[in-house]
Amino acid sequence: MEANGPEVLRFMREALRLAVESARSGNGGPFAALVVKDGEIVGRGCNGVTGANDPTAHAEIEAIRDACRRLGTFRLNDCDIYCSSEPCPMCLGAIYWARLERVYYSNDREIAAEAGFDDAFIYDEISRPVGRRVLPTRHLTLTGADEAFAVWKALADRVEY
Amino acid sequence: MEANGPEVLRFMREALRLAVESARSGNGGPFAALVVKDGEIVGRGCNGVTGANDPTAHAEIEAIRDACRRLGTFRLNDCDIYCSSEPCPMCLGAIYWARLERVYYSNDREIAAEAGFDDAFIYDEISRPVGRRVLPTRHLTLTGADEAFAVWKALADRVEY
Repeated sequence: MEANGPEVLRFMREALRLAVESARSGNGGPFAALVVKDGEIVGRGCNGVTGANDPTAHAEIEAIRDACRRLGTFRLNDCDIYCSSEPCPMCLGAIYWARLERVYYSNDREIAAEAGFDDAFIYDEISRPVGRRVLPTRHLTLTGADEAFAVWKALADRVEY
Repeated sequence: MEANGPEVLRFMREALRLAVESARSGNGGPFAALVVKDGEIVGRGCNGVTGANDPTAHAEIEAIRDACRRLGTFRLNDCDIYCSSEPCPMCLGAIYWARLERVYYSNDREIAAEAGFDDAFIYDEISRPVGRRVLPTRHLTLTGADEAFAVWKALADRVEY
């Protein structure tokens, strides 16, 4: 169910308030995110990269994991996500995999770049063909490399996601 | 330290072996990844999306988190990652944030697409401007939205990442 205008603003203000808390906490960057289902917050996340020694502990990833734990599912297709800042490519990828319905964000990648965060750089990199990235990347073609896919396709009770 | 040719093949074969194990486990998709530092495996990950009810539990994310836990750091700048398949945008984003040195992968995104995985679709989406994506996305500009960045910049003991 899509939130109405005042609800959307209320959830975004809550995400922005949490982002200030996150910045003050000293556990990570100034970012927060909320997952909302039918007008209720079902997941919350703050950036915890440096506090948890986990480079993947961005706000959106944490909020998605929190919502999935709470709802007992790996699919959030009836939920929206509110991000204090534009999701980075890692988090946007997670949003697609979680099948979230809608994304609301406030600060954009340029504001994050000004504060020293690499989101804009990573967007540029990911959009490039593998061979034209700054990150050294090698594609190794090995005989039998796709065996895992054959095993997967043959599984009678595989759960697709 | 860059691995030599036979070492690279040995690590990739191990990642591919783990991917077959992952496929057989029934915990998630047919994917695995290894983080390697100075010729030693310091992190392992298998896809656990459906088993753990966690859409972010891709092999590379799990391997990075494992290596960071083991090494007590959020920066893997002296490590390489071996991925049984080309990292999806979420995982590639995580690889940049973890500052990994090099990426080796085997099966490409087209092989994953044939097996029913959305990596290629997500790459297309992420490369598009926000307004031209399939995923409904709204940029809300609110007064004071960037307060968290001001708090962050004013923190004397902030840890950058």
